Amino acid sequence: MTMTVRSYVGGRWAAPSGPTTALLHAATAEEVAVIGTDPIDLVPVLDHARSVGGPALRAMSFHERALALKALALHLNGRRDHLYELSTWTGATRRDSLVDVDGGIGVLFSYAGKGRRELPNTHVLVDGPTERLGRGGQFVGQHLYTSRRGVALQINAFNFPVWGMLEKLAPAFLAGVPTVVKPAGQTAYLTAAVVEEIVASGLLPEGSVQLVVGGTRGLLDLLAEQDTVAFTGSAGTAALLRAHPSVQHRGVRFSSEADSLNFSLLGPDVGPGSPELDLFVRQLVTEMTAKAGQKCTAIRRALVPQHLVPDVVAAVDARITGKVRVGNPASEDVTMGALVGLDHRRAVREGLEKLTQGARLVVGDPDRFEVVDADPRRGAFLPPLLLVADDPARTEPHEVEVFGPVSTVIAYRDVDHAIDLAARGRGSLVGSVVSADPDVVREVVLGVAPWHGRLLVLDQDSAAESTGHGSPLPQLVHGGPGRAGDGEELGGIRSVLHFMQRTAVQGSPRAVAAVTGTWVTGAPRRTEGEHPFRKSLADLQVGDSVTGGPRTVTLEDVDRFADLSGDRFYAHTDDDAAAANPFFEGRVAHGYFVVSLAAGLFVSPEPGPVLANYGLERLRFLTPVYPGDALTVHLTAKQISPRVDADYGEVVWDAEVLNQDGETVATYDVLTLVAKEWPR
Amino acid sequence: MTMTVRSYVGGRWAAPSGPTTALLHAATAEEVAVIGTDPIDLVPVLDHARSVGGPALRAMSFHERALALKALALHLNGRRDHLYELSTWTGATRRDSLVDVDGGIGVLFSYAGKGRRELPNTHVLVDGPTERLGRGGQFVGQHLYTSRRGVALQINAFNFPVWGMLEKLAPAFLAGVPTVVKPAGQTAYLTAAVVEEIVASGLLPEGSVQLVVGGTRGLLDLLAEQDTVAFTGSAGTAALLRAHPSVQHRGVRFSSEADSLNFSLLGPDVGPGSPELDLFVRQLVTEMTAKAGQKCTAIRRALVPQHLVPDVVAAVDARITGKVRVGNPASEDVTMGALVGLDHRRAVREGLEKLTQGARLVVGDPDRFEVVDADPRRGAFLPPLLLVADDPARTEPHEVEVFGPVSTVIAYRDVDHAIDLAARGRGSLVGSVVSADPDVVREVVLGVAPWHGRLLVLDQDSAAESTGHGSPLPQLVHGGPGRAGDGEELGGIRSVLHFMQRTAVQGSPRAVAAVTGTWVTGAPRRTEGEHPFRKSLADLQVGDSVTGGPRTVTLEDVDRFADLSGDRFYAHTDDDAAAANPFFEGRVAHGYFVVSLAAGLFVSPEPGPVLANYGLERLRFLTPVYPGDALTVHLTAKQISPRVDADYGEVVWDAEVLNQDGETVATYDVLTLVAKEWPR
Repeated sequence: MTMTVRSYVGGRWAAPSGPTTALLHAATAEEVAVIGTDPIDLVPVLDHARSVGGPALRAMSFHERALALKALALHLNGRRDHLYELSTWTGATRRDSLVDVDGGIGVLFSYAGKGRRELPNTHVLVDGPTERLGRGGQFVGQHLYTSRRGVALQINAFNFPVWGMLEKLAPAFLAGVPTVVKPAGQTAYLTAAVVEEIVASGLLPEGSVQLVVGGTRGLLDLLAEQDTVAFTGSAGTAALLRAHPSVQHRGVRFSSEADSLNFSLLGPDVGPGSPELDLFVRQLVTEMTAKAGQKCTAIRRALVPQHLVPDVVAAVDARITGKVRVGNPASEDVTMGALVGLDHRRAVREGLEKLTQGARLVVGDPDRFEVVDADPRRGAFLPPLLLVADDPARTEPHEVEVFGPVSTVIAYRDVDHAIDLAARGRGSLVGSVVSADPDVVREVVLGVAPWHGRLLVLDQDSAAESTGHGSPLPQLVHGGPGRAGDGEELGGIRSVLHFMQRTAVQGSPRAVAAVTGTWVTGAPRRTEGEHPFRKSLADLQVGDSVTGGPRTVTLEDVDRFADLSGDRFYAHTDDDAAAANPFFEGRVAHGYFVVSLAAGLFVSPEPGPVLANYGLERLRFLTPVYPGDALTVHLTAKQISPRVDADYGEVVWDAEVLNQDGETVATYDVLTLVAKEWPR
Repeated sequence: MTMTVRSYVGGRWAAPSGPTTALLHAATAEEVAVIGTDPIDLVPVLDHARSVGGPALRAMSFHERALALKALALHLNGRRDHLYELSTWTGATRRDSLVDVDGGIGVLFSYAGKGRRELPNTHVLVDGPTERLGRGGQFVGQHLYTSRRGVALQINAFNFPVWGMLEKLAPAFLAGVPTVVKPAGQTAYLTAAVVEEIVASGLLPEGSVQLVVGGTRGLLDLLAEQDTVAFTGSAGTAALLRAHPSVQHRGVRFSSEADSLNFSLLGPDVGPGSPELDLFVRQLVTEMTAKAGQKCTAIRRALVPQHLVPDVVAAVDARITGKVRVGNPASEDVTMGALVGLDHRRAVREGLEKLTQGARLVVGDPDRFEVVDADPRRGAFLPPLLLVADDPARTEPHEVEVFGPVSTVIAYRDVDHAIDLAARGRGSLVGSVVSADPDVVREVVLGVAPWHGRLLVLDQDSAAESTGHGSPLPQLVHGGPGRAGDGEELGGIRSVLHFMQRTAVQGSPRAVAAVTGTWVTGAPRRTEGEHPFRKSLADLQVGDSVTGGPRTVTLEDVDRFADLSGDRFYAHTDDDAAAANPFFEGRVAHGYFVVSLAAGLFVSPEPGPVLANYGLERLRFLTPVYPGDALTVHLTAKQISPRVDADYGEVVWDAEVLNQDGETVATYDVLTLVAKEWPR
């Protein structure tokens, strides 16, 4: 049975109207699906995203978007078996499918969590502190992020049809920007299956995700200033897209993750037979065989101390020969599946030929290998292939990327040599260092960091928990400089910001507060009426304030505080010693007493909507407090962020403690939980 | 006397060897300088930057670089008169020169200050919190920034020969990246004069700044993956450079600030004769006349409520006619100087002709105007010119930028209409809103923010201190999306990061700490030996730790703390009320008491190298503390940052408070000042 892959555009599913191309099973070469080749009318796609998806997303807050992602993750979790099944067609083993399917769902969960933990429940995002721009304090600056008004177009590679889509969708969605997915034709049926689940679930607002499969030529021509393109694929295609007039002249934001020649280095401290050698070899074989090596993060260059090359080759051979079983990805006996198709295998063989001009094959034979439970003449099979470059200065091992189960061992003389060799990849997504020596680790990591987006250090401490060289994680940046595309994806909230515009807003504190919804120093404080601790979120407003004090600090207070806390630091207990300190003129009150006393001055003690103080940020002690000083505190509601899924929210309060001379003694933010409603 | 503008390359000054082109005084058309036209040998320039400048800069810490910038700022401050003199040749009045010269020096001071206040005194920069990646806590991630190993090429516009160079130099220098300056030919003598001062001062390491004037064709061909290009100029040239193979194929990082059609909006709330109307008109006239309107941030489009157009035109006319005196920039009577040259005036006149297809001239006549103290037939003079677009939907006022003293008034119907019109600039560096109504301000700013890099709100509160629509500030991002180039410059430390590479480092906490020099949770703590508060910076190491406690918290403690602080919040004083709170099971200790008690447990009370606790960061109360709980605290040196210019440094300590069940009660960072030396 052949599946017809449809596009989801303008709120409906569209089957190809004209001729189609067949997509073949990677291992059997049977036809499994067809996609259309006639041009799709793309104008309505972008219109729909801009006029329906964008406004719907921007109407949601960060937390609402995060919760929608969580609901979607839960929904897809229940549909995994269906996705695994289609995934087999791509040549993926069960383990490969887990990385793609569960990995993609994991990204959704991660963004759902980070969105609620690390972003306020608002529509705009304040970036960095307020900058005071004038002496009088009535002209300040504040950076903020707003959702870009365009479309996030994702152009994906064939190798991770699920993860590749979801890892780009999650941050764009959280940023409030609608997505148009353009999958690689070869595995588009699996991406389409996920979009079908998204649409059927009804969990994401209409227009926030569309799928275009087949004839999408001209799509980039339609993009403009507010649009973003995130591309994953070859460096060559990335360069072509980057040269597109929309990117060149219209300021379309373009970011790419391109194939790169990632390295893994075995430290010079590692001896033969050591556990680190084993960790190195195991990871190398995993990266060669997982997804049949079709990973832009796979290890292409294994940098090994000269004298250990024979040991490494022997150990890799022992782990591959007779152990790695290539064949039908659906079979339980098989540990490595097929390449995605015969065309791709041809490209890998061609690449291998180029590579062998600078390296010789030492493990595996592309022309003679066993295939389990499948017809070797029909499926796109290849065995894992290890090469050794006898001359590390040859260009091929550093420049020819073979997108299959292929790695090259390159000998290095010393750490400096290894760092130079790593840099010859001209920019990579990831590198790894296997070493037990912290000095080696520091030297290598800092030496190669400017050339890499991610670096993994593997040692016996981390081995049990390590997710491995080849796995991008939602918390960490994915993307590298130079050849790797100089893009950044993932990295938690960092990638959400790529879909937003940062703007510096200048004006009076009152004006800036009106724009950001966040109180800033110098903006009016509302002190009339009820104590702000008596107001639930239904009533509390940014700028609501209470002033407490003055209270005079006595020497007895300081003594009692030292007794109670046990903090008898000399500056609080010994007048002469304190006066000898460069910052004090004599005994000073404890900083912790100042904030404790301030709380005593601003707190409203009776039960009320303020439920708890869960933390403090940015506390600075600016002027010492001496016995006899009289302190006043201003507490002002600064940011209010009601939870979507709880009956309370976070309120950040600005606290400023002053002395009798009006000098600022301390400033800080008090973090509280406040009920949404409170009976009066 | 004619100046020969030389290049500073490879550590020496090089005069042009072949033919030269004359540069003329903007107001007198006299020859003032010559520049070479023969190709410069650029390979040694980049070699010198990469092999001499880069290593020298990377050997310096952030604070050392910041102090070098401060010294340079002080030096240039003493040479301002010389620079003002040359600045006159460009057509600039004394006031224009202040913006360029003092503005540029101000950027240096700002980065010198921010570098020492906001960056640690290290060579790598930790970005964001540590991410826990495994359940056992032995696999974590940490982002860090390292200096890119390439060159920062700056390609500048003619209009700010001093500021334009220094605003790009300061962040690159602070990032540890050497700069190559390519000034616009027309005003290169002034940029060269600044480089002469830099070189003569000997304050910046050799190779950190080079200057190439004249035949620099092919410069971009030499750039590679680790290099950065920061361009300021026309959108057309930006597009050409962005299409260069080095950018397209080699991942050279390219950023541009391009001319844009910035708007200034008069709020619909503003009435005729109101102070806001006056603020709006004054700012508009300032932006038309300052630098003779040759500013990429000038107001090109004045958005005015329909019914106020006649009032605005009349008020602008009143402020220009007979008041703005065009002429010899050196003359005290003159308030507006010349355009940079006759070629440029021709381009402005051509632009004006295009513009008048969609707007009519209402103030000023390009063919009839008075010129003070100069020969109108020789100097590149033009008067301020105001137009009105009767049809706001015409494309010309939104797309034709005339880089001279020219603005167009465009009538709008309501706020939504105004937001649409502002967006028709397709991305601008800056916009401004003049309004006294916070709702209007919020609506306009959030509506246009995705299209702008900076937005200024002007009202009576901020008017006295406002630096004005057209002035980029070092603290705030400069650059806008779309047509404006989608680049970002300035914005404090943000722009330093553009010259660095962000890398995610994964591994065991021990390995990550070894790389970053910052202790992370899970890395080993060194508790043997002396109390870490007894160690000066000469001895203290990251990971040095002290454990205090256990100490049991009693009900009496809580009562005494409530008495002493005055904080009688019910959760600490009333068992039943506390139990009714959703987060507590009964009376709990004050959070402030927990941190006070922890200090009592970790402090070493005798005088010693720890001089003061100046603040606290990231305090979170994670588990309530009930009477009877016994608390333990671990305090661990996390980051050590010695000051270059003081006999102490900052030490950040990680504090973790645990209860008797090993649950984490509170975590925070303690900020202290610690002496570099301490007698034993």
